[in-house]
Parts: sequence; C-alpha cells; structure tokens
Amino acid sequence: MMEISLRELAELVDGKVIGDPAAKVSGLGSLDDATEGQITFLSNPKLVDKVVKTRATAVILPKGVDSFGRNVIETANPYLAFAKVLTLFSASPKTPLGVMDGSFVSDSAVLGADVTVYPGAYIGENVTIGDRVTIHPGVVIYAQTVLGNDVTLHSNVSIRERCRIGNRVIIHNGAVIGSDGFGYVPDGKSYYKIPQVGIVVIEDDVEIGANTTIDRAALDVTLIKRGVKIDNLVQVAHNCVVGEDTAIAAQSGLSGSSIIGRNVTISGQVATAGHVKVGDNIVLAGRCGVTGDLDQPGVYSGVPPIPHKDWLKASVLFARLPEMKKTIAMLEKRLAALEKHESTGV
Amino acid sequence: MMEISLRELAELVDGKVIGDPAAKVSGLGSLDDATEGQITFLSNPKLVDKVVKTRATAVILPKGVDSFGRNVIETANPYLAFAKVLTLFSASPKTPLGVMDGSFVSDSAVLGADVTVYPGAYIGENVTIGDRVTIHPGVVIYAQTVLGNDVTLHSNVSIRERCRIGNRVIIHNGAVIGSDGFGYVPDGKSYYKIPQVGIVVIEDDVEIGANTTIDRAALDVTLIKRGVKIDNLVQVAHNCVVGEDTAIAAQSGLSGSSIIGRNVTISGQVATAGHVKVGDNIVLAGRCGVTGDLDQPGVYSGVPPIPHKDWLKASVLFARLPEMKKTIAMLEKRLAALEKHESTGV
Amino acid sequence: MMEISLRELAELVDGKVIGDPAAKVSGLGSLDDATEGQITFLSNPKLVDKVVKTRATAVILPKGVDSFGRNVIETANPYLAFAKVLTLFSASPKTPLGVMDGSFVSDSAVLGADVTVYPGAYIGENVTIGDRVTIHPGVVIYAQTVLGNDVTLHSNVSIRERCRIGNRVIIHNGAVIGSDGFGYVPDGKSYYKIPQVGIVVIEDDVEIGANTTIDRAALDVTLIKRGVKIDNLVQVAHNCVVGEDTAIAAQSGLSGSSIIGRNVTISGQVATAGHVKVGDNIVLAGRCGVTGDLDQPGVYSGVPPIPHKDWLKASVLFARLPEMKKTIAMLEKRLAALEKHESTGV
Repeated sequence: MMEISLRELAELVDGKVIGDPAAKVSGLGSLDDATEGQITFLSNPKLVDKVVKTRATAVILPKGVDSFGRNVIETANPYLAFAKVLTLFSASPKTPLGVMDGSFVSDSAVLGADVTVYPGAYIGENVTIGDRVTIHPGVVIYAQTVLGNDVTLHSNVSIRERCRIGNRVIIHNGAVIGSDGFGYVPDGKSYYKIPQVGIVVIEDDVEIGANTTIDRAALDVTLIKRGVKIDNLVQVAHNCVVGEDTAIAAQSGLSGSSIIGRNVTISGQVATAGHVKVGDNIVLAGRCGVTGDLDQPGVYSGVPPIPHKDWLKASVLFARLPEMKKTIAMLEKRLAALEKHESTGV
Repeated sequence: MMEISLRELAELVDGKVIGDPAAKVSGLGSLDDATEGQITFLSNPKLVDKVVKTRATAVILPKGVDSFGRNVIETANPYLAFAKVLTLFSASPKTPLGVMDGSFVSDSAVLGADVTVYPGAYIGENVTIGDRVTIHPGVVIYAQTVLGNDVTLHSNVSIRERCRIGNRVIIHNGAVIGSDGFGYVPDGKSYYKIPQVGIVVIEDDVEIGANTTIDRAALDVTLIKRGVKIDNLVQVAHNCVVGEDTAIAAQSGLSGSSIIGRNVTISGQVATAGHVKVGDNIVLAGRCGVTGDLDQPGVYSGVPPIPHKDWLKASVLFARLPEMKKTIAMLEKRLAALEKHESTGV
Repeated sequence: MMEISLRELAELVDGKVIGDPAAKVSGLGSLDDATEGQITFLSNPKLVDKVVKTRATAVILPKGVDSFGRNVIETANPYLAFAKVLTLFSASPKTPLGVMDGSFVSDSAVLGADVTVYPGAYIGENVTIGDRVTIHPGVVIYAQTVLGNDVTLHSNVSIRERCRIGNRVIIHNGAVIGSDGFGYVPDGKSYYKIPQVGIVVIEDDVEIGANTTIDRAALDVTLIKRGVKIDNLVQVAHNCVVGEDTAIAAQSGLSGSSIIGRNVTISGQVATAGHVKVGDNIVLAGRCGVTGDLDQPGVYSGVPPIPHKDWLKASVLFARLPEMKKTIAMLEKRLAALEKHESTGV
C-alpha cells in the first residue's frame, strides 16, 4: 500500500499543511468511515463538528475553517483536492497485456505500443489504434476507425466504420458510436433510407456513458469536442456538434443537427429539437425541451424553455389551475350581477 | 408434454375444484385461443360470457363467478394462479452445459456446481460464481465480482469489477452493472474526473431489464435491495438505494444518491433529482419528476409531484389556458367600465 | 470509382436532364462542398443562389427553378433523388465472407447462401437464417429464432429465442429483441414473475436503432409490421403492435399492449400508456404522452395529448401563470370594493 506524507499531498492539491507535514496516510475515507492512517475531507461546512470526531489521521479543509488541533491540509477547493487524492490512491499501475488469445485483430489493423486487447474483442480491417489503449472483451471496432492514445473502451462497446476517437477518451460499456442516423425520405409508398455515409469524430478527453448512442452523420461529421462528458443512455443524433467541456446527463437526447456550445450543462432527460442552437455556458435543467435557439447564458427549464426561476414560480401554480378557473367563473358571475344592478338599478 | 389434474393444479394455486378434479390439462391459453386439453383463466369479470364459449377443458375463476357447468378452479387471485400455472407449463428442465468451448474463464475464477458458460462469455480474475448459474454469450464479468446461486445473465450483459450479485437474480440482455458514476469537479479549466471506486450490490430475487444501466458508487455502494424489479433502459446513478420490492418501469432515471423506499412503484419515464428521498409504498405515475423528498404514501404525478387526482384535474385545464387568459382580460375590461361609471356616474 | 451519365441518373430518379445528358459524375456533395465531377442537389429553394456558384458538374433541382445554365436534373422530389443517387454512389459490393473462424454456429442451425458470420457471433440451436445475411461480431441469436433474407445484424445485437425477423431487416448495434416483458403479479409478499412465453415478430423492411429494446409478448406476439423504422434507445413493451410504415424517434417508449396504427409518426421521448390505441396517420410531437386512445388524424402534443397548435398557444402561457394569478387577485379586490360601494353607497 502506498504511503504518502501530508507535505507531498499538500503539494499535489495546491494546499497548505497545518499540523505535522511528515504524517503519513495511505488511503482516503469519508468523515464517518475513515480510519487511522487515512485522510478525509470536509466539503460541506455544516459538518464541521465531525472534524473533531473523525479517526482519520488528517483532514482536507477549506480555508478559514477551525482545524480543532487536527492535522489538516487547507485548500481553496477541498472537493477537487479530494478527487485528486482519491485518484492518487485508487490508481493501479496497468500492465499492458498485449493482444490476448481469443481476441480477433485484423491483419491490416495497426496497433500502438503497450495495448491490451482482451479475449472476445474484435478489431476490423485497417483500424489504427494508439499507444496504451485498453480494449475490453466484446468490444467491436469496424473497419478504418482510428483511436488515439490512452483510450479505454469498456466491454461490449461498438464503434462503427471510419470514426475517429481522440486521446484519453473513455467509453463505457455497451455504448455505440457511429450507428446510422435516423434518416429517411417518404417516397409516396413508404420510407426510402438515406445512406448515412458520414462519421463520428470524438476529440480528446471525452468520456461517454454506458449504453449511450452517438449516430454518424448523413454526409459529414457528428462532432463531440474536447472535454465533453456524456452520461448513460444519452442519444446524440446525426450531425450534432457538442462544444468543448459540455456535460450531458443521463437519458437526454439531442435531435439531428443540434449545435450545442461550450461549457453547457445539460441535465437529465432533456431534449433538443432538430437544428436548434444552444449557446455557450447555458444550463438546461432536468427535462427541459429546447424548441428553438437559446443564446443568452442562464438556467432554463420547461418546454419551451424559460428562465428556471420563472419556471419554478409557474410550475407550482399548475396544481392551482382548477382553483384559478373556479375563481374566474365566480368573478364573472359577481361582475354580471353588478352590471345588471348598474343598468337596471335592481 | 406434461399432463396434470385439476386437483393438483388447485393445490398449486391454493384454489378449489368445481367439476371434475380428475380432468387433466397440459397447457394454458387465453379464453379465446385455448383448446381442449388446456386450461384458461378469467381475470376480467366483464368477459364472463367467454367462459361459456371457451373450448378449454377448465377455467380458473375468481370466487363467486358462475361456473356455467364448466370445470373450474376457483381462487382468490386468478391472475396469480394463471402466472403459477404458466410457470409450471413453461418451465423447461435446464441441463447445465458446463464451461463451453469458446468462452474465456480466468484461471483464478471460482465456479459453483452445474453452471453453464456459453461461448463468447468472459469471466475475469478472481470472479466467484455460485451454483446453477447461466452465463449467456457475450456476457463480460470484470475481476473480483461475486455472483450468488441460480443467477441468469443474458447475452451481452456487462458487470464491472468488484460488484456483488445475490441469488436468483436475472439480468436481461445488454444491461450494464457497475459502470462509472457521472462524477466530475470543475477545476477552473475543464472537468476533473472523480474516480468511482465504490461498487454495486444487487440483493436476492432482483430482475433487471435489457440495456438498463446501474452505476457504481463514488466511494461506497449503489444498492438494489431484495425483490426489486427494474424494466428496460432505466438509469440508476451512483450511490442510489432502491428499497425492497420496488418496481421501476422503462426509461425512468434515478439521479445520484436518490433513496427510494420499499414497495414503491415507479412508472415509465419518471425522474428523480439528486439526493431526494421517496418513502415506502409511494406510486409515481408516468413521467413524474421528483424534485424534493416525498414521504406521504399516495399516487403522485407531475413536476413537482402533486397528488395524481389533482394532477388529472389540472392537466386538462392546461389546454384551456388561452381561454382563461381571454376571460381574465375581458373581466378586467368590464370591471374598468363599471369602475369608471361608478366614479363618474357616466 | 463509378462514373455515370446524367442521362442514366435522370432515369434512376425519374427526372429530366437540362443541359448535357452525356456529362458524367462520380460522386455526390453538398452545394458548398461538391467538386467538379460530382453532382449536388438543392432541396431548400432559399439557397438557389448557390446553384450559380457550386463547382459541381450537375445539380438536382426541383421543377420550375432557374437552372442558371448549369447541367441540371429536374425532378419532383430532389431530396428523394439525392437519397437515391447517394445510395448508388455509396453502395459497396458486399462479398460474403461465410462463417468465419471465431464465430460459434450451432450444429442444428440452418444457414442460407452467401451469409457472413463474423468472429464472436453466436448462433444458437435450430436457428434458421436466410440468404445474404450479415451477422456482425458479438451478435447473439438464441435458439429457434428465424431470420429472413438480406438481414443485417450489427455488432452486439441480441435476439432471444423463437423470434421471427423478416427480409431486409436492419438492426443496429446493441439492440435487444425478445427480452422478457415486464410482467409480475403481487402475491401478497412480493412480486411473482409471469413467464413471458410469447415472441417478437418483425416483418419485412423494418429498421431498428442502436440499443433499442423490444420485449417479447407474455403469451402471444409483440408485432412490428412491415416498413416500420425505429430510432435508438426506444422501448417497445410486451404485446405492442406497431403498424406498417410507422416511424418512432429516439427514446420513445410504448407501454404494454399499445396498439399503434399505420404511418404514424412518433417523435422523440414520447410515451404511451398501457393498452392505448393510436390511429393511422397520427403525428405525436416530441414528448407527447398518450394517456388514452387517439383516433382522429392530426398532430398532437402534451399530456394528455391535445392538437399541437392548441398546445403551442397554451404552452407559452404556462410562464405567465404567476401574472394571471396576480391579475385574478387584483380583479377580486377591485370587484369587492365595487360590491361594497354598491351595497353601502360608500
């Protein structure tokens, strides 16, 4: 087990040691569960009492919080520090296993150094794979697809022909990249299928969730830009573009040719209509339905989208529609009585 | 083909024979389609006329319904009796096939008695598998995962490392258990990935639908308790807890750390926000969006959830908003006229 | 590269050449990107200016549009013509590869002529497969299932036992056909599973999207009729019937025993309640929730569904509920003042 001093950890997380910088820890736990020899962290200041009681050897704290005499690493962003420390402790050195028996690698495929290809994986013709790539069992890569370095494809991922996957991309189990877009022309009798001859391009540092589907473009490119994070069971239709560092939560769906900006946050079960544009830095709350272009930064809810704080006020009134309707009817009656009185004097 | 007497069937379903207890049946059909030698059932009392006409040799009836001189098994819950009889007739004896050629089983994996591992299945290092387990083709089990007895994993299921699956669990095709939770910390430039080092625990008698995804916890456990039934394409995010005998219909999504009680019914396309609690015995109607804790038993609809019967009344008024708005404007005008008249006498 | 004259293309798309019928093209591009030797098309009349500037050798135009002296194929439906020309240029002759090493085909399976079965595919007992069928890696076909001619199953598709798939069916990666329907009876303690012993029947010319799930019927048949097109991540529950030439967009879900007519258009994230009927030629807009039968053709939105144009008017008023409520309160106050004045004369 790796042991590391608080001094070294403080450096890693851009923090400052209060207490004994030579104290060593070898793991990370929650405030309640951490044991001696572990480090823990406080991200919610309301739980500061637990800092006194925790059995952990050290605590990561935000600046300005009482250390109660504990060994402390003080840092501006304890949650980020926690993630970095957890990465340190959970990283296991990966020994590349090479192309294992029971996998199928086409003769024309080109593989980089230090790859692992598990049994049951399939790598098609003229596929190119970078260095330190891990291909889990049941992964299927169609012909002519290109993968960068340090890519991880979890089991049963499918990547269709001619797609391009960048460096450090992680694709979780069962996801499908490059399936045909949903494109047909009515031909008077039925539907005529439009061949989907475009591709999917996934840039560097993208992560894609389990059983998510990203369709290839009809003619050009469905583009997932650098740093995008996509959760499980998300649908990205043909010809969409998703901007850098945008995050998309589970079960959301982007219709064909949706253009999503940079650093957008898309919550769960959101949908966009076809061909809409969503500007940079916009937040779409859960189940928002984007029916037209949105360009002003802000948090949006509802269908069509409205500012989230307006939606909160309106949504609680939905339940009161019957009462409002009754009040309107009553007002109408009373008004009619007044009007009658007015005109007849009775 | 198995033949069984009505006397034996009545015992199986906790019912009472009216007519000939020695009469034998060898299959089950619907009221319309059943033939001689089969048994049928009436669950909807409106269809009682069909009892007269059915060609079936016997009919399962609720108590107190006229038997029209037919051979009848009378029982308190005909639908349950139907399910039990169908189980009897459709159960085929399973001969375990062992570890078949073309599968991959790690040397360090421990397999119980009478297992079947189909070609194309992959069982990783230090996996433990109980007795009478069936692993279909394309199933991938990562290292250190533990499966109980009588588990069935359908084709192309993925179970990630260190997860724990109880007894008599059925997981349908393409489902993913233990994929990384969707956890990142903004680091000022982009997103920093929080390692997802927890696991998924699935207790006994759980059934999980096709292409459903259940994410592993960040640090601890995503927990699916005994008897839970989950339909297809459902998302269960990291650190959720789903209580005993809760049922979740297709395409619903539980956000991170949602805590769902016992015997909850979650209909299709429902969503919960992160960290909400849903109490025991609650029913969430289709597409309900749970934005905060719910603890009173009842049926809820809408976003935010309101009692379903209130939602029904409100939802039909949604279409009448334009009319309500017009009426309000008209009232305002008439009222202004009255006010003017009042103050001016004109 | 295939070269073809405008005369031949005109015949293919039922069009008329204006300009040089002997001119030859060998590919297709967009108005902006097409190069010499390619053909392009104008589907949106607003872009007619681009016809002048395109470097393409020929342009497919709707009837009555100025040809600006270019080589033109005039046709009633340029979009359909584009799809047909693209099909011509993108079709690659498929050489059947036979049953490849590393696949598993049961001895009792019957395969047609000119099939391709990739490594890692599994074909179970007594499966019957037609001619010119392509089975990609990781596909799993359970026992006794029957496939027609010219079927394509993309990687990691699962088809469960006894299902029937017609001719020219395309099933995209990861889709699941024939998983158990979600059927249980409460037995007083927990849920009793109803065996799902029916099947799925998919007729000719159906296309099914990636990671879509179609459950087998409880007793009878879940039926997807000729020409149906289903997008990604769609759920079709047990005992549904989907009529000819109906299209279902991504992430929609049909509850058990939903009966959908012919030529219905179901947009994204739509849901139907159990046992509802949707009539022929109906259009359900995005996220419509069908709570009862619909039989009048038209476009519907909302939950419950209302005519789309009414929904548009109502949905923009949702945001104005707080304002309406305030107005009602104000009217009530003013009316009370008038009434008081009336009765007291003050």
